[in-house]
Amino acid sequence: MSEAHPAPLVLGIDPGLRACGWGLVAGGARASYVASGVIRASPKETLGRRLELIHAGIAALIHQHAPAEVAIEDPFVGTLNPASALAIGQARSVAVLAAAQAGIEVSFYAPRAVKAAVGYGASDKQQVQAMVKLLLDLDATPKPADAADALAVALCHLSQRRIKALADEQTGRRANGQMGKALRQ
Amino acid sequence: MSEAHPAPLVLGIDPGLRACGWGLVAGGARASYVASGVIRASPKETLGRRLELIHAGIAALIHQHAPAEVAIEDPFVGTLNPASALAIGQARSVAVLAAAQAGIEVSFYAPRAVKAAVGYGASDKQQVQAMVKLLLDLDATPKPADAADALAVALCHLSQRRIKALADEQTGRRANGQMGKALRQ
Repeated sequence: MSEAHPAPLVLGIDPGLRACGWGLVAGGARASYVASGVIRASPKETLGRRLELIHAGIAALIHQHAPAEVAIEDPFVGTLNPASALAIGQARSVAVLAAAQAGIEVSFYAPRAVKAAVGYGASDKQQVQAMVKLLLDLDATPKPADAADALAVALCHLSQRRIKALADEQTGRRANGQMGKALRQ
Repeated sequence: MSEAHPAPLVLGIDPGLRACGWGLVAGGARASYVASGVIRASPKETLGRRLELIHAGIAALIHQHAPAEVAIEDPFVGTLNPASALAIGQARSVAVLAAAQAGIEVSFYAPRAVKAAVGYGASDKQQVQAMVKLLLDLDATPKPADAADALAVALCHLSQRRIKALADEQTGRRANGQMGKALRQ
């Protein structure tokens, strides 16, 4: 891990209109669990009320925990039917809005990237929960599955951040090397 | 038109991530034009910023004009690919949220219902614009097309409202008739 890029508090979100999972993970030499949960919006409510509940829930989490970055699971649209895409788009949209209103950058990750980040073989809900428990050194698997998925999104973001930091470092070293060479000429 | 159901100020919205059309129409014996326009959110901005612009734009319109009801064009998902459905879902979502936050009821209309409301044959953008001009007794066709579409959604809502009011009236008459009969027995 590069100390030049201190890992921040990341809010991971697994958007859904019925249940929107969230998970807070602090970066560092080893990622650590902060909190997780689910915002529920009953289908008995109007669409407007459900979107209001999700938006207000995410806004309250951001206000309370002040995460530096937000990471959201992006559905792979190729596998969705248009009605599902529309529903997921709506829940995701108000979560992205809440982050934007707080001036926080949002990163998006495909489900496949999230699964890869929590380890090879995490191909179903149970495996994702088990891997998240292991990676965050928890005593029990985080529940419900939506909360575990959100923690996995946050872990994916931290892992991408580390990869980017290492790449930036190498680019920097190469740039410095070239500059040194230029000075010697 | 039933005077028992005074027609309100209706905000029609044609949601889009790039251009979100809006149109305000006042009901009454004859619907009348109040205002219309488009909220633009450049694709050069981040998704979060674009959603913020659309949400803030709709919220400002609601604050300024205090419409009694909001009507939104609902895409017929069967004709969309999942990527388009996701994009429209996002724009629509923050418009619905702005209405819900102001405590205003939102009605959804399929494009076919909107076209039927502005008259038989309104099968393309130009025809919708021409019909909206005619119905609202305007000197020129409302432009751009997104604003005309939003006015058509508001007109569709007012027409559905009139149909519902007439149906309620007839149900009321029948109920009164039955009650009269019951009293006579």
